[in-house]
Amino acid sequence: MTYQNDILLRTLRGEKTERRPVWMMRQAGRVLAEYRAVREKAGSFIALATTPELASEVTVQPVDIFGVDAAIIFSDILVVPEGMGLPYEMYEKQGPFFPKTIQTAADVEALHLIEPEQHLGYVMEAIRLTKQKLQQRVPLIGFAGAPWTIFAYMTEGKGSKTFSKAKAFLYQQPTIAHALLHKITQSTIAYLKGQIVAGADVLQLFDSWAGILSPESYRTFALPYIAQICEAIKDVPMIVFAKDAHFARAWLGELPCAAVGLDWTMEAGDSRRLIGADKVLQGNLDPCVLYADETNLRKEVEKMLRSFDSKHIVNLGHGLYPDISPAKAKLFVDTAKEISTELHLRM
Amino acid sequence: MTYQNDILLRTLRGEKTERRPVWMMRQAGRVLAEYRAVREKAGSFIALATTPELASEVTVQPVDIFGVDAAIIFSDILVVPEGMGLPYEMYEKQGPFFPKTIQTAADVEALHLIEPEQHLGYVMEAIRLTKQKLQQRVPLIGFAGAPWTIFAYMTEGKGSKTFSKAKAFLYQQPTIAHALLHKITQSTIAYLKGQIVAGADVLQLFDSWAGILSPESYRTFALPYIAQICEAIKDVPMIVFAKDAHFARAWLGELPCAAVGLDWTMEAGDSRRLIGADKVLQGNLDPCVLYADETNLRKEVEKMLRSFDSKHIVNLGHGLYPDISPAKAKLFVDTAKEISTELHLRM
Repeated sequence: MTYQNDILLRTLRGEKTERRPVWMMRQAGRVLAEYRAVREKAGSFIALATTPELASEVTVQPVDIFGVDAAIIFSDILVVPEGMGLPYEMYEKQGPFFPKTIQTAADVEALHLIEPEQHLGYVMEAIRLTKQKLQQRVPLIGFAGAPWTIFAYMTEGKGSKTFSKAKAFLYQQPTIAHALLHKITQSTIAYLKGQIVAGADVLQLFDSWAGILSPESYRTFALPYIAQICEAIKDVPMIVFAKDAHFARAWLGELPCAAVGLDWTMEAGDSRRLIGADKVLQGNLDPCVLYADETNLRKEVEKMLRSFDSKHIVNLGHGLYPDISPAKAKLFVDTAKEISTELHLRM
Repeated sequence: MTYQNDILLRTLRGEKTERRPVWMMRQAGRVLAEYRAVREKAGSFIALATTPELASEVTVQPVDIFGVDAAIIFSDILVVPEGMGLPYEMYEKQGPFFPKTIQTAADVEALHLIEPEQHLGYVMEAIRLTKQKLQQRVPLIGFAGAPWTIFAYMTEGKGSKTFSKAKAFLYQQPTIAHALLHKITQSTIAYLKGQIVAGADVLQLFDSWAGILSPESYRTFALPYIAQICEAIKDVPMIVFAKDAHFARAWLGELPCAAVGLDWTMEAGDSRRLIGADKVLQGNLDPCVLYADETNLRKEVEKMLRSFDSKHIVNLGHGLYPDISPAKAKLFVDTAKEISTELHLRM
């Protein structure tokens, strides 16, 4: 498929480009009044995520409003446990909550593997509708949570500062933990392949809770499952974002994926050295820079762009915060395009 | 002053020792029934921290019960803002709350510098009483929050996942931020010197929120103030623990302090290389390992001990979690002593 703007895909293929592509984590939702209007119409976060017409509408908003170089499907990483038979609720300000959690081998056994159209048809349909609405302007990013992060929610049952129940599970019942991680991985592979069939052009894995594991636990319980997913996904480029997993960068560099995401605590130079020359790096402005005035915002964006080489997808180091002004988000996108054009002209 | 057990002090001076010293962050409080009894008598966390007789009692408990090689004064990093004229409240499960926060230059101006006996006399008295109760069995560690962490609470007003208000302050009002950080630093130096006069033998700086800053922000707003404190404290050894600040390890290695604390995401070998040969390293077992059974706990402790060289103070990578069993905490201490004795015999 060809796109009016394919700079993200060309960058992911390692081609030289006229500037760097830019998108923002959490660009669909949170900061936009246009999003909140649709969210209100839906009635709840989960209703919005499971109504393809509305989910596709908010997915396209940031392409129209911010001029980002890609859309990312509006959804939630926790649809995977939902699709496997472990439903969750979402509470305003408090986040997700699982009425039942996974604790035993029998609990793992009771979960089923995901058949994308059967169990998560609403995501597939949202992707198809989004592709129609985008009319080939920009590519669409699909995503899933990495297995460890999904495991953490399924065993802890809710968000947590320490995820100490989830981590205790790893130390207390490693065999059952691996069985659950294996099942999540198989489901995730099926789910991501479904997203490709439905129209996703790029896939991102979010390992949001990577940084609370020790390096050894990460190598035992997280990395092998990410590797299995990367190996199974051949048809579109894959971006792996393991938040706070500074210790894992050299290992991520060896994965068969196109790009590695960085948070703002990971310096570009160090990261390039650790990850190696071939991967595209994505990131990594501190979202709090978007609270700065225009002059300081421009200065910080320029510094960030100069710290990376040209194999770079511009993004924040984490999602937009809800109280960031849309004008500042747009300024980030515009500035990244403008300054990276100047930088690439000189390269 | 001489102690029956001075292995912590000898290790901090760089001497060869028969085994490694061990203590645990949050050893005073949280997991002990004996602590909860005193806490109940006090009526509230703040009442306990501000009643020297009771604070000294809970400080000594882990020496008696766990056999750790040092006591650490039971107190709170937020007594510094309190002492500067910014009072806080503490809510069960929700944590600290500042009814008024610092937002303007006038707010900074209105704060006063700490005179330890005048503003934080209850801590000084708790240290003196603790020293009596310890009867020179082990040394006493005093502590303070690092200036950035104290700044974060004073501007954000409460705990936060992102501390986005505190970080926005740095980007929006850097000059006022530096004025506040300067004032916190001066107060902290006076406070720590007061702790030494009262009897503290070792001091630890806790930079609990170090890891949410970008490397550049850390070097601008956090590190210089820690350096000022280290330079001002000459009489006792200093331990600097900057949680999650993996990117700052090489800089921490250049501080005039005796030891650097590590969390469990920081590998011992990498950290030694980054920090340099002269510093003692402290840490870094994942507290969640204390949920494991005895066999796995011993295995993990041994692995951790072997990953460090002998310039090592054994500790957890963060504080004990409230639901960890005291028996497991004691097993950690016993195992660390036993295995490190074997390791040092062979060295």
